[in-house]
Amino acid sequence: MSKINVAVLGATGSVGQKFIELLTNHPWFEIIEVAASNRSAFKKYGEAANWFMQTPMPEKIKNMVVKECEPNLTAKVVFSGLDSGVAGEIEEKFANAGYIVISNSKNHRFDENVPLMIPEVNADHLEMLKNQSNGFIVTNPNCSIIGLVMALKPLHDKFGIEKVNVVTMQAISGAGYPGVPSLDIYDNVVPFIEGEEPKLEKEPAKILGKLNSSNKVDLADIKISAQCNRVAVTDGHTECVQIKFKNKPAKEEIIEAWTSYRGEPQKLNLPTAPKQPIHYFEENRFPQPKTHRNLEGGMAVSVGRLRECPLFDYKFVVLSHNTVRGAAGGTILIAELMKERKLI
Amino acid sequence: MSKINVAVLGATGSVGQKFIELLTNHPWFEIIEVAASNRSAFKKYGEAANWFMQTPMPEKIKNMVVKECEPNLTAKVVFSGLDSGVAGEIEEKFANAGYIVISNSKNHRFDENVPLMIPEVNADHLEMLKNQSNGFIVTNPNCSIIGLVMALKPLHDKFGIEKVNVVTMQAISGAGYPGVPSLDIYDNVVPFIEGEEPKLEKEPAKILGKLNSSNKVDLADIKISAQCNRVAVTDGHTECVQIKFKNKPAKEEIIEAWTSYRGEPQKLNLPTAPKQPIHYFEENRFPQPKTHRNLEGGMAVSVGRLRECPLFDYKFVVLSHNTVRGAAGGTILIAELMKERKLI
Amino acid sequence: MSKINVAVLGATGSVGQKFIELLTNHPWFEIIEVAASNRSAFKKYGEAANWFMQTPMPEKIKNMVVKECEPNLTAKVVFSGLDSGVAGEIEEKFANAGYIVISNSKNHRFDENVPLMIPEVNADHLEMLKNQSNGFIVTNPNCSIIGLVMALKPLHDKFGIEKVNVVTMQAISGAGYPGVPSLDIYDNVVPFIEGEEPKLEKEPAKILGKLNSSNKVDLADIKISAQCNRVAVTDGHTECVQIKFKNKPAKEEIIEAWTSYRGEPQKLNLPTAPKQPIHYFEENRFPQPKTHRNLEGGMAVSVGRLRECPLFDYKFVVLSHNTVRGAAGGTILIAELMKERKLI
Amino acid sequence: MSKINVAVLGATGSVGQKFIELLTNHPWFEIIEVAASNRSAFKKYGEAANWFMQTPMPEKIKNMVVKECEPNLTAKVVFSGLDSGVAGEIEEKFANAGYIVISNSKNHRFDENVPLMIPEVNADHLEMLKNQSNGFIVTNPNCSIIGLVMALKPLHDKFGIEKVNVVTMQAISGAGYPGVPSLDIYDNVVPFIEGEEPKLEKEPAKILGKLNSSNKVDLADIKISAQCNRVAVTDGHTECVQIKFKNKPAKEEIIEAWTSYRGEPQKLNLPTAPKQPIHYFEENRFPQPKTHRNLEGGMAVSVGRLRECPLFDYKFVVLSHNTVRGAAGGTILIAELMKERKLI
Repeated sequence: MSKINVAVLGATGSVGQKFIELLTNHPWFEIIEVAASNRSAFKKYGEAANWFMQTPMPEKIKNMVVKECEPNLTAKVVFSGLDSGVAGEIEEKFANAGYIVISNSKNHRFDENVPLMIPEVNADHLEMLKNQSNGFIVTNPNCSIIGLVMALKPLHDKFGIEKVNVVTMQAISGAGYPGVPSLDIYDNVVPFIEGEEPKLEKEPAKILGKLNSSNKVDLADIKISAQCNRVAVTDGHTECVQIKFKNKPAKEEIIEAWTSYRGEPQKLNLPTAPKQPIHYFEENRFPQPKTHRNLEGGMAVSVGRLRECPLFDYKFVVLSHNTVRGAAGGTILIAELMKERKLI
Repeated sequence: MSKINVAVLGATGSVGQKFIELLTNHPWFEIIEVAASNRSAFKKYGEAANWFMQTPMPEKIKNMVVKECEPNLTAKVVFSGLDSGVAGEIEEKFANAGYIVISNSKNHRFDENVPLMIPEVNADHLEMLKNQSNGFIVTNPNCSIIGLVMALKPLHDKFGIEKVNVVTMQAISGAGYPGVPSLDIYDNVVPFIEGEEPKLEKEPAKILGKLNSSNKVDLADIKISAQCNRVAVTDGHTECVQIKFKNKPAKEEIIEAWTSYRGEPQKLNLPTAPKQPIHYFEENRFPQPKTHRNLEGGMAVSVGRLRECPLFDYKFVVLSHNTVRGAAGGTILIAELMKERKLI
Repeated sequence: MSKINVAVLGATGSVGQKFIELLTNHPWFEIIEVAASNRSAFKKYGEAANWFMQTPMPEKIKNMVVKECEPNLTAKVVFSGLDSGVAGEIEEKFANAGYIVISNSKNHRFDENVPLMIPEVNADHLEMLKNQSNGFIVTNPNCSIIGLVMALKPLHDKFGIEKVNVVTMQAISGAGYPGVPSLDIYDNVVPFIEGEEPKLEKEPAKILGKLNSSNKVDLADIKISAQCNRVAVTDGHTECVQIKFKNKPAKEEIIEAWTSYRGEPQKLNLPTAPKQPIHYFEENRFPQPKTHRNLEGGMAVSVGRLRECPLFDYKFVVLSHNTVRGAAGGTILIAELMKERKLI
Repeated sequence: MSKINVAVLGATGSVGQKFIELLTNHPWFEIIEVAASNRSAFKKYGEAANWFMQTPMPEKIKNMVVKECEPNLTAKVVFSGLDSGVAGEIEEKFANAGYIVISNSKNHRFDENVPLMIPEVNADHLEMLKNQSNGFIVTNPNCSIIGLVMALKPLHDKFGIEKVNVVTMQAISGAGYPGVPSLDIYDNVVPFIEGEEPKLEKEPAKILGKLNSSNKVDLADIKISAQCNRVAVTDGHTECVQIKFKNKPAKEEIIEAWTSYRGEPQKLNLPTAPKQPIHYFEENRFPQPKTHRNLEGGMAVSVGRLRECPLFDYKFVVLSHNTVRGAAGGTILIAELMKERKLI
């Protein structure tokens, strides 16, 4: 089987670099072009990018000449790690020109016909693409939301969720590069992340929403309150969650719902899919970013400390890798699902 | 005025060292004895203690011979930084022998006649001592509770609090020394602290409770849910708090209640008292451990990010220094209050 | 080919855990027994070990019953991650009973007939085993030495080294578990590591020494001065090195000597061997622990910043993974070499 | 006595903020003006500056309107914390206009008639100002040099120093703000600081040089090799030093030379001067940034681990606070010395 040619937009940024790292040696996709802002365009990637991944820059990419983010690329599938300051317009131009844009940026997440996808959760939302013409835009949710919503999905399906309270402790890599100055976060907690809490209170309703007969999404009726903190962790967002159910299950039923959950990526055995999307840990001190963020290549979600709550029904801790599952890896999984559905 | 002689029990431990640091040059109290476990007793303090404060060990203390924790000390007032494994029994022995024990340990916090004190909050609880005979035991609350309860107090007085939800991000110094292994916490969050959540859900009710006519405390009727995390911060506990009121006030009323609050320590102008116990910060990114933990010598509480909550009435962030306000400093403030009340 | 049965001594400690992690799925070796101190013996490994690796504990090991460190094991090849407090005697007992002991502990490193091995550097030292009777003891050098000596070896062979000056910045994982208290190292540098500097000044002379006709080692005549620091890094020792040569080469000759170097493990294509043992980086800011410690599975050594020195001939920076290349991984590579040489 | 009016140039930057923090409540100097780049000029300081000191911004400064860096200020004494990109020209303009410029920037450090001052070391170099006309420029050395040269001075005076080898581990605050991205330094060491090593190899010769009869400096004849690393420490530069003497003293003579050393600031009892400029610690694990950086208000230098060296005569560790002693505090001390000498 010959591979599908893809390009990475915003290739020199932190999400772009992660796309490149994860797509190197991908069985289905082959990066043939990298594009970035004018500052980088026409330079060799190896000179344009301040590479800070923990694996060496792939030789092949190092020698590619960075292209402009214009819809004159050869590859018809583009992964977008563009900064939200420019992503909106550029992605639209590409879609209008017939490209398939799979984006990690926030700009089009709430467009009426754009799916906001977690393949394990709402694979059926790809039907929304029928309402898009020319090319497509498909989006990946915010990094702090993916792990949470994956943990909510099997519970919402079985027991109905009414309210969710969440306090996050988010890794510095979530802010991109150069991102958080070390003087700001070292020996510190910053109890504020610009724009993050509204996303957390809003995006889950679309992801968990029902596709209606017009192939649009009816938002799920879940009330969410979020508080977001930046902590001194390299990778991995940890979240303290509380839930009020419509029908309160037993603790064992929740754990069983989590550990037995399998979504479309598992059924289709997609290359980037974790075998078990949700792992539950019995040890009180788990999950932790350092220990669990790389579980199943960083694509699995770790949950622990499930216990009754005096104010809600239950409380627990959820952990996921913010730049893999929560960004580039999750976006690639969407592309794999689309390929299996013949949308790519 | 001649100073009052005091001793420190558990003087080589982390709380003991902080007592020594904060009592050096205290205008009212003079350390004349240090006592510790058998392992340290009869050695010079300078050899027995693995000093890790950020100011040098006071010369006078360095040369003191460490005594046993037996009630044969000359000083009649003892500050206890004993480990909870031994504090219960030793503190009782001292009290029975007529000593005044002011303790940072958890063992006697819920004894019927033992006040659990934050001088700004429940100075009147000292009346409980009338029910103790011989000496006294007075206790200081857990480090994660003091900042929280100080922030709750003026709001509870004015508007009535029904429910409190709190998620903590606690500093490593809260675990004593050697405490948390660096391999466990560096580049990590540990979402569990042994025994901490039950304390947080239980102690505030006593501190905010009303003294009845028998000089016992009727617990406050506030429902609390707590989730406690250890983060990579040296000093300073940060807490994300949500409140449901009996009578929901306006945002400005809350801020006014906080900033105008003054307790007994302020009225009496106690040496260790912060001039303004609660500071409110308008900047979204505040309060932070690094920036605010040392406010007013580490004795003030910092609050910020007050905003409406979709699930409760309000949410906000509270920050206080866990080893100063939350341990040794708070305990010394109790002693100062007792001295002014002629109880010492 | 059926696998060779092996056992891990000190299996619950930090080196022991790393042995288990790296030997899982090893093509040649199969762990059939784990042994540890009396405290752990007779318990299931999953209960006895406080597992803190970043990959999950292998299921097969979890259910093994921990054995005592007595020479009644079935496996005839044992990897020792024993604490140096007990390693000396236990390893001797095993060797006397005919076992092949491959050890990461310091105790026997300077025994006259015990090779101190870096397979890329002194594969011929295995001849020393001819002077051992019954079983064998083979040892792996200290973690701060392996990267350094690998970088010295090709230069010493070609140009002769007279003097080496080295200042290390060593990772916290080098101290084992629980190891360094977080309060000691967070926001800090500790300019002292017990016993480390003498090792660094002494071990290289044996490793770089020449095997004589009696199969004993004549120490290399290199003068070394070492200063060792602990820094807040999880894994990866960084070292600032200065060298005085017998015959000062050009800068390019040194880089060429490094990048072209291949040892026995490369020639034999051993499973754990890095393809290129020494990588040179041209960027001024490299090598760094975070970026390069995992190069070639953590088995390669990274070098950079080679430049002339006003006091010596050259100065440069060397970086290697202390628990992989510098401990368990290096030890496994020795075993692989021994297997190819029919010594196992 | 009425205070001397001063201004701070580059007042919104990290050194500028430290000047403001340290000059607040200074007994001799009073900040009456703050000046900064066009981006900040004409705004209130409280709005222009992203204050990140660990004490609150002084109220008086908060309300000052930031002025342009033009020589039309009322104050005749200006402290410069200007970025080196602009400091050269601006400082010259001020000096030509008759102002007294005391600068922390590197631009004029090697001007023939500009003293490069550490008041404890070369107070006599103020004579060089006789060769300047109109106003003056006086400079403070680089942050990594001050602690080192203070430790060298008493040894050079008594025993003669021939060679110095130094490897630094420098704090993130040394890079200003925003400075080092957290993703670059967290869980990492960066073995390179742009331009730092040449400064370390060059500046000490001027500071330790002799004033000749033309009031110019004859450079000291000391050969230095430096290697500079950035480590994850907030404040405090740690340096591993080796020395070759003209006349090798005994260990005790060196310690005695350090602890008994007193310079002009001590003799004149200047307000910012440490009582004892150099402290020696006997404990192997000292000095450390966390424990000793704040010694004597951050103005003292801490030394430890003096021991013989196989390659030089001795090796030891030196530690000093890079933003206090090594920047703003050191610069203020120069001003105090100038005031006593009637140069201000």
